[in-house]
Amino acid sequence: MSLDLPTFEHVLAAAARIEGKVRRTPVMRSAWLDDLLGAELHFKCEHLQDTGAFKLRGASNAVLSLDEETARRGVVTQSSGNHGAAIALAAKRRGIPAHVVVPRDASAVKLEAVRAHGAHLRLCEPGMDARNAVCAEVQASTGAHLIHPFDDARVIAGQGTAALELVDEVTGLDCVIAPVSGGGLMSGTCLAVHGRDPRIQLFAAEPAGARDTFDALAAGHRPAQAHAETICDGLRAIVGVRPFAILREHLAGVVLASDAETVRAMRLIWERLKQVVEPSAAIVLAAVMADRERFAGKRIGLILSGGNLDLDALPGLFALGQQA
Amino acid sequence: MSLDLPTFEHVLAAAARIEGKVRRTPVMRSAWLDDLLGAELHFKCEHLQDTGAFKLRGASNAVLSLDEETARRGVVTQSSGNHGAAIALAAKRRGIPAHVVVPRDASAVKLEAVRAHGAHLRLCEPGMDARNAVCAEVQASTGAHLIHPFDDARVIAGQGTAALELVDEVTGLDCVIAPVSGGGLMSGTCLAVHGRDPRIQLFAAEPAGARDTFDALAAGHRPAQAHAETICDGLRAIVGVRPFAILREHLAGVVLASDAETVRAMRLIWERLKQVVEPSAAIVLAAVMADRERFAGKRIGLILSGGNLDLDALPGLFALGQQA
Repeated sequence: MSLDLPTFEHVLAAAARIEGKVRRTPVMRSAWLDDLLGAELHFKCEHLQDTGAFKLRGASNAVLSLDEETARRGVVTQSSGNHGAAIALAAKRRGIPAHVVVPRDASAVKLEAVRAHGAHLRLCEPGMDARNAVCAEVQASTGAHLIHPFDDARVIAGQGTAALELVDEVTGLDCVIAPVSGGGLMSGTCLAVHGRDPRIQLFAAEPAGARDTFDALAAGHRPAQAHAETICDGLRAIVGVRPFAILREHLAGVVLASDAETVRAMRLIWERLKQVVEPSAAIVLAAVMADRERFAGKRIGLILSGGNLDLDALPGLFALGQQA
Repeated sequence: MSLDLPTFEHVLAAAARIEGKVRRTPVMRSAWLDDLLGAELHFKCEHLQDTGAFKLRGASNAVLSLDEETARRGVVTQSSGNHGAAIALAAKRRGIPAHVVVPRDASAVKLEAVRAHGAHLRLCEPGMDARNAVCAEVQASTGAHLIHPFDDARVIAGQGTAALELVDEVTGLDCVIAPVSGGGLMSGTCLAVHGRDPRIQLFAAEPAGARDTFDALAAGHRPAQAHAETICDGLRAIVGVRPFAILREHLAGVVLASDAETVRAMRLIWERLKQVVEPSAAIVLAAVMADRERFAGKRIGLILSGGNLDLDALPGLFALGQQA
């Protein structure tokens, strides 16, 4: 099998390509959280990225990589939300049309973000089959170029630029933790971190209710289907072909966290860092809390991937966080 | 009447005294909020200050101003919370004892913050009389030096350093808005801003349910008592003697905001800036929303004063924000 797998050089090229087009986000710390966990935590704040998520990095790298003629026909993607908003904004900034296929059950906040950036919104039924069908239909009728949310070398390389900034800013990290879903962020993070320093250990944080990556790494192959039941609405996809090939090479481990642990971690981030992050982001802290011994005494980089959530859902989330 | 009123020079001296002892907080922006309000909003993020509020500035300036002999006997204060935590931390950093008198109905989050910094916590009944009595008792029994939360020249000068950083970082501001309660932050802001540029207009944001400053400026004198019914638990005090004398000279106006408007503003800050701020801080944005015409087209500095709130109270707050 020959895959167009991205490398560290692609991450560096992406960083140069998107410089000035995306935000260089801050790294935050909390002495209180460090004390609580007996570790040194450095949070890379991608929830402060434009569109409220790291996704703008990969989307911008992909959109800016297109030649003029391809770009003119526009781009199309499918996304539960954050990637859709990112493609919409990246396309708007380049002045080309964007079509975003979104499942009807995506959060209102994420749908609104896609609309706000002027993309053509196409609602579809939940499930990958429905999404792919509508995507193909849009491609056929408009000639738009498909940018997959994670199984795309340009997207992976772009997502890796967040971790690149992190390791360039914080020296001496022992490990870096990012959430894993389709694996675009996690695999880009692997390339960036190990490109700079192969001694840094890389961990993926994954919902216990959507543990396809954990199982796939144990089994040595990706599943065709997987069960996903988690409040982390950004972490329900199955790991992609290209991300999986990269994760196999680089990951030190996958740490599973329950939704209740993730909500507790989210509350701590809100209270102590004063940062609004979504559950799919807070899971990186939940991973440290779920496996304290492993991370004790370590200098840890954590990618806070996004901050888009529906505040009306909070009472239900908080109740979940009370569970054992 | 001869008052020891602070001046711009005291703000500059405070800035030098507390440099490196408090955080230089970032200024944040949101293109979405700018579009919504047709103005250019620059948010000074004092909720990211150590202890989660601007109060550490005034407390640090006061504690560091004490001579060795006075300092050794410790400090005492009364506070609904944020000032108490700030005095506790400032005293801990100088290595002297602190006694903090707190009303029993203060939020659990704020009580915990005082305890966490190792201060002696003294609970009292709600109301200024009870607070003052317990404070006097502690002074008599320990010899501790009283640092009033707002009616103190050193505290006022310290609080002004936040606005000083803001005007030094953001050029060409048309106006600056801060919340007003006892008036320490607002009066320090006046000194700092007009010391740098007398053309900048200064506005206080005050809860409609605790409008003592609005009424006092209209009447030309401070009230002995005032009604305070608002969810903004940091904004229930009556404006102090020294702050009032300064506000009369400097303020362009007081803008009143209802609690419902303040909660809506708070949600917008959470959603768009991804920042956890408390209602007493969000009121500065509520003021702009309550008086859009006045602020349209203006470059505005807004002091986000703090981010300490009990997340368990959110469902109730959000319900309030739904009201007309």
